Amino acid sequence: MTDSTLNDLKHRLRDFAQARDWDQFHSPKNLSMALSAEVAEIIEHFQWLTEEQSKNLPKDKLEEVETELADTLIYLIRLADKLDIDLLKAATSKIELNEQKYPVDKSRGNAKKYTELDT
Amino acid sequence: MTDSTLNDLKHRLRDFAQARDWDQFHSPKNLSMALSAEVAEIIEHFQWLTEEQSKNLPKDKLEEVETELADTLIYLIRLADKLDIDLLKAATSKIELNEQKYPVDKSRGNAKKYTELDT
Amino acid sequence: MTDSTLNDLKHRLRDFAQARDWDQFHSPKNLSMALSAEVAEIIEHFQWLTEEQSKNLPKDKLEEVETELADTLIYLIRLADKLDIDLLKAATSKIELNEQKYPVDKSRGNAKKYTELDT
Amino acid sequence: MTDSTLNDLKHRLRDFAQARDWDQFHSPKNLSMALSAEVAEIIEHFQWLTEEQSKNLPKDKLEEVETELADTLIYLIRLADKLDIDLLKAATSKIELNEQKYPVDKSRGNAKKYTELDT
Repeated sequence: MTDSTLNDLKHRLRDFAQARDWDQFHSPKNLSMALSAEVAEIIEHFQWLTEEQSKNLPKDKLEEVETELADTLIYLIRLADKLDIDLLKAATSKIELNEQKYPVDKSRGNAKKYTELDT
Repeated sequence: MTDSTLNDLKHRLRDFAQARDWDQFHSPKNLSMALSAEVAEIIEHFQWLTEEQSKNLPKDKLEEVETELADTLIYLIRLADKLDIDLLKAATSKIELNEQKYPVDKSRGNAKKYTELDT
Repeated sequence: MTDSTLNDLKHRLRDFAQARDWDQFHSPKNLSMALSAEVAEIIEHFQWLTEEQSKNLPKDKLEEVETELADTLIYLIRLADKLDIDLLKAATSKIELNEQKYPVDKSRGNAKKYTELDT
Repeated sequence: MTDSTLNDLKHRLRDFAQARDWDQFHSPKNLSMALSAEVAEIIEHFQWLTEEQSKNLPKDKLEEVETELADTLIYLIRLADKLDIDLLKAATSKIELNEQKYPVDKSRGNAKKYTELDT
């Protein structure tokens, strides 16, 4: 057995929605809202933790966060599919752009610089 | 040339942060915020559009949304990496759970049912 | 009895946090996350509804949304208080700015114009 | 001159939208999205800062955050108005509920307790 790829998941989610006749709810507008709600559930887990605590979640918390990350990826895949966007290709292009935009020597280890550079 | 996989991107993003000494900013807490801010940029594109309009974006808008989706995936990958979560495996498990939770015959094409079922 | 004002609520929330020694959690960073999580709970109520349905919530849904709006206002007041920002004054200034930025004759009833103007 | 109240702002925003024929865009669904996008702009200011830094913003940053808080309040008022919800009353009720739900002696100064209690 080989691992699922992003592309496998896209097709599986497509079939899932189709079988339930849920495509009618999956407009990009609605999916962007669902995506946002899932990300907020991640935020909720971290909001009262220190950064340090957020790096050391207890096992049960970590499993809950894992589920929220899964939901986030699921809606992100659905949204990209509906817009006919190739997620991996888009991300690869963006990383290449970032590599040019933030050259190592100018960006190195400076919070202030980071904040200003990052937009 | 073969396409990038999610795993390739994870490593590339890891190297990117390391080279710039930016790991210090990439606590799960901070990354969850960055993820949330990116998703909001998607939301912004859709907020005044009808659902129908959101399905038919003009080319320039679509390209902007594509970039936001890329940023969202990038931060999602980083966050999962920092928490040592396997995104594809987590999403696959969640889809399997959903397939059991929303059996086709009970879930079919009913907005009200959908809303209630979906949580 | 007169109604509570925003200012009354600010003081009441300040006392509430102080009595429980919760100020230690209420950094602006953390409060911005809590605010974001509350807004997402509003989003969740609307994500699968049409715009029309969102205008005609059943009574029980409306009461739930009311609670989320309350939570949102509460965290917004706390955040402003911690940053020593006068919310009402800030909103008044922003409205004045908007009145200049979007003159009635140029902005009237045009979705496209609205979208472009609105930032 | 007396200060504006939340109620004054509600009416002023109502007139503002009416004069521009923008009510057609202000469905609760759309306003919840706009609200969410504004809150994300607050998040963006804080995402790479430590909690300590978020308490000590430089003046120019603070002014930018002030504008985002204003926008957040504006959309919150609009959304409440469209749903015919009295924001101040709703927040007051919620605070009363919280006072019962989190009794001082049980809630005092414990991050873990806080996190668990808070939902």
